[in-house]
Amino acid sequence: MPSQPFQGVLVPVLTPFTPHGEPDAGRLAGFCRWLLDQGAGGLSIFGTTSEANSMSGAERMALLDTLVEAGIPAEKLMPGTGACSVTEAAGLARHAVGRGCGGVLMLPPFYYKGVPDDGIFAFVSGVIDRVASPALRIYLYHIPPVAQVGYSLDLVGRLIKAYPQSVVGLKDSSGNWSNTAALLDRYPGFAVFPGSEVFLLDALRKGGAGCITASGNVNVPGIRRIYDDWRGTQAEALQAEATALRKALQAYPMVPALKRIVAHFHNDPDWAIVRPPMLPLDEPQSHALIADLTKLGFTLDQRPSSMAA
Amino acid sequence: MPSQPFQGVLVPVLTPFTPHGEPDAGRLAGFCRWLLDQGAGGLSIFGTTSEANSMSGAERMALLDTLVEAGIPAEKLMPGTGACSVTEAAGLARHAVGRGCGGVLMLPPFYYKGVPDDGIFAFVSGVIDRVASPALRIYLYHIPPVAQVGYSLDLVGRLIKAYPQSVVGLKDSSGNWSNTAALLDRYPGFAVFPGSEVFLLDALRKGGAGCITASGNVNVPGIRRIYDDWRGTQAEALQAEATALRKALQAYPMVPALKRIVAHFHNDPDWAIVRPPMLPLDEPQSHALIADLTKLGFTLDQRPSSMAA
Repeated sequence: MPSQPFQGVLVPVLTPFTPHGEPDAGRLAGFCRWLLDQGAGGLSIFGTTSEANSMSGAERMALLDTLVEAGIPAEKLMPGTGACSVTEAAGLARHAVGRGCGGVLMLPPFYYKGVPDDGIFAFVSGVIDRVASPALRIYLYHIPPVAQVGYSLDLVGRLIKAYPQSVVGLKDSSGNWSNTAALLDRYPGFAVFPGSEVFLLDALRKGGAGCITASGNVNVPGIRRIYDDWRGTQAEALQAEATALRKALQAYPMVPALKRIVAHFHNDPDWAIVRPPMLPLDEPQSHALIADLTKLGFTLDQRPSSMAA
Repeated sequence: MPSQPFQGVLVPVLTPFTPHGEPDAGRLAGFCRWLLDQGAGGLSIFGTTSEANSMSGAERMALLDTLVEAGIPAEKLMPGTGACSVTEAAGLARHAVGRGCGGVLMLPPFYYKGVPDDGIFAFVSGVIDRVASPALRIYLYHIPPVAQVGYSLDLVGRLIKAYPQSVVGLKDSSGNWSNTAALLDRYPGFAVFPGSEVFLLDALRKGGAGCITASGNVNVPGIRRIYDDWRGTQAEALQAEATALRKALQAYPMVPALKRIVAHFHNDPDWAIVRPPMLPLDEPQSHALIADLTKLGFTLDQRPSSMAA
């Protein structure tokens, strides 16, 4: 097994847009710095929560360039390189490797449905062959509720066996703990990250590497405490606290809700902007969300100085 | 209602790849010419059958450039400009308009699932605003079995009302005749193309514009006869004949099967190449397919001279 560049609480970073709907690189760099300061173990920029697939490949590459030039440590970055075409996925992965990123988070090709495992295997092989770099570290991105296409348990094993230096981990956003548990049981040393902190304590007890979770955008400290103290007597209580916040968030469309929270607590209304096909929360939803969080005693460390571009 | 640039039998053209897996522009141009010679009313290059989403945007634009430069009439082309991001979809549509294409076939954004109609409306608006050309003619591409996200009947009406000069038609690949019939009933003058010739005669009787069908790649003449003679006494028999071929094809994965047929009848084995995540038919499947077609008396006009680049 290769060395594992990532562990702990990884955040699929929200992407801020300008009022004209363009990605706002400066504000993103400030937000990335703030997340790292809060204790994020890595930044999965360009994930589902990042609205990555609502941006072109060129937009994503330009944002990554800006982040690295702004001093965000590339080894902390795990950009999503998901695309339906092997050429685009390879182009994004090659760019990320060239920028020194610690790894990439790769969706399976997600347009055609019901495709055979052999076809997905050929896709991943095609990306690895085209990138042709020993520095490539792929984290498979398994999110069947959205992508509809996923990496089966057997396919994961075939990929690890064929590419042990390149296919080094997986984010499991299936929402199905039995799948995460099976991955941990079958493939020791392979870095498995549940896609929600709800499963963090259970995963750590079975050798999980941490989690990659949308709610990290607003709760790195609370989730990080579970990671830091999972063998301690408070672990269950810390897990219950983080889970309660997650459940409150899940009552709303996740990405618009997270952006609304950042907009509210960072006093920056533009943060609520999303790209189509997503829509921002409307006013009643926004008020209800903030009220729900207030009941939980939730607040967000603002650190205005680090939010500047 | 604006003038309708397309009618009849439109073909979502198969994309040939080289043995190295790269799009083969010369062979594609020859195939397009052959389809037009056979009576295709238009060419929906870069549709689902074209493996468009298995190609990058840059690859699609380069192919379109080559086709136009090779003399394929741009007004006969309806390239798919489907993409999950509004910027990429707009870039592809702008390029197609710049090349003089008769229209574009546009998927809804298909990564996020369960998105509201308002979000899809905002996406289409975003494309139209960004292209900002009176020459843009959008054909909505409704294919929920694959994209999972679709254009609802009400959303279609809202788009027609908001953009009567731009949103001029729809390909209905729902496989659900009641949806096609409802579109034809509700929106007279709007060009509705069922996504399979199985519904062609029924659609023509209700004012449909024709069909856009994968099997057109191997059966333009048979489907064209229905279109040319739908008021005649032989219409039902012609429909039954075309439907029988379609049903035979549907017993196999459609794209690999169609490519296998072209490879076989045009004596050009490379035509069977597909891109991941698709896989070519294996040998037993290939033999069974050709045997099934032989039983139906099927053959393919080879015209080797027009197949040259």
